[in-house]
Amino acid sequence: MKIVKFVKDSEAAYGIFNNKIYGIAGSIFTDFTVLKDYVLVDEVTLLAPCTPSKAVCIGLNYNDHKKKTDLEEPTLFLKPPSSLNNPNGIIEYPAISNDVQYEAELAIVIKKQARNIVVENAYEYILGYTCANDVSARDLQKRDGQWTRGKSFDTFMPLGPCIETDIDPHNLDIKLYLNDKVCQSSNTCNLLFNIPELIAFITEVMTLYPGDVILTGTPAGVGPMQIGDRVVVEIEGIGRLENTIGNVRCR
Amino acid sequence: MKIVKFVKDSEAAYGIFNNKIYGIAGSIFTDFTVLKDYVLVDEVTLLAPCTPSKAVCIGLNYNDHKKKTDLEEPTLFLKPPSSLNNPNGIIEYPAISNDVQYEAELAIVIKKQARNIVVENAYEYILGYTCANDVSARDLQKRDGQWTRGKSFDTFMPLGPCIETDIDPHNLDIKLYLNDKVCQSSNTCNLLFNIPELIAFITEVMTLYPGDVILTGTPAGVGPMQIGDRVVVEIEGIGRLENTIGNVRCR
Repeated sequence: MKIVKFVKDSEAAYGIFNNKIYGIAGSIFTDFTVLKDYVLVDEVTLLAPCTPSKAVCIGLNYNDHKKKTDLEEPTLFLKPPSSLNNPNGIIEYPAISNDVQYEAELAIVIKKQARNIVVENAYEYILGYTCANDVSARDLQKRDGQWTRGKSFDTFMPLGPCIETDIDPHNLDIKLYLNDKVCQSSNTCNLLFNIPELIAFITEVMTLYPGDVILTGTPAGVGPMQIGDRVVVEIEGIGRLENTIGNVRCR
Repeated sequence: MKIVKFVKDSEAAYGIFNNKIYGIAGSIFTDFTVLKDYVLVDEVTLLAPCTPSKAVCIGLNYNDHKKKTDLEEPTLFLKPPSSLNNPNGIIEYPAISNDVQYEAELAIVIKKQARNIVVENAYEYILGYTCANDVSARDLQKRDGQWTRGKSFDTFMPLGPCIETDIDPHNLDIKLYLNDKVCQSSNTCNLLFNIPELIAFITEVMTLYPGDVILTGTPAGVGPMQIGDRVVVEIEGIGRLENTIGNVRCR
């Protein structure tokens, strides 16, 4: 099932995408029923499918980057909620960076409050999966040592287009297209730390809440984007998350 | 004026502390009036005085640690909202760390949405100041390289006891007491990057929202805490933020 969040006539709502977008009654995190009412995709603006209180991100987690034996544990970092961006939203190129890069990632969306979860129970806490672009000002990331600033700019966390709830997260092709050219191409079977291992590792540290996301790391092939570029994260069975690169807008 | 947040009879509310806690009508972020109704401090449980959507933290920012000429820019990192802790709350000592340390810090509380703020206008965006303890599992922080995991455990961000709105933030004694022994002692006049400079630097990257906090860095003297210890961050003109160290509780 593909859960989407959208705006129509200035109102945000959740729905289920199945050629059309069907309305729902209830909460996507607990229980809901699918209504017969629908809208067409062309009639709405898609939003990021959740509003995380935090986004926990994983460094280097594909075996095309390095081998698992090189690593004892995943490396964690955070992107702030203020970096959230929508499908088709503009990724704003900061004036203080000269090297803004894409990173295609599978994102886990949390279903219910989770703390100290063991690997065996991890799937109970997962609502589904979406596409993420962990946009990174690589020059600032390297200069600072701490990755936070380079990864925390407003608009640097596009999520979407939907939360797919019924999928095997460890056998999905993941691709990144820059202006239609394939720049990253891997499969989530190459994740070094798998989804339950990540849930266990993170919830040993902090409580995850409904709608929080885990960005599971990016495969090889990261590279720069320029103003005017179109960037697409495509994950098999989920969909295509498309964004364009633009100038910083006034707020 | 000292703004406090408290629970009485299971209900959370804001109030103004002036020997007693007086109720308010309105929002602490926009406009409010102080009521004649009051409760006594002994009758309530104090909460962290705000609920940040994010906490932006600054590494090494006192001139007793290093000189400003050594640094081009502040180092940013994030603590997640889930790490928030209350005055008198228990700081839970994680089983996976053997070196949990205190860090006394002055915290800025944001008043209104702030993006690309210039130094000259920074104070308009500040509601006030509170005490923070940037609790850190130093062994994990060092091992990981990225500071996120070591600083993100639940309960690792005590804030309080109040937001002081009328104070010069650059001339405040700041002290940390561990079981009544002074372990850190400095003054905020020793900050390398001052408050307006931090606001400008951070909002060049990300939008700050009402209630967000900036932890401005800790002076020299950090050190370990043990289960059973009492730790106090005391900042002149704001108050004393006291916590105890305990075992991890089940959630």
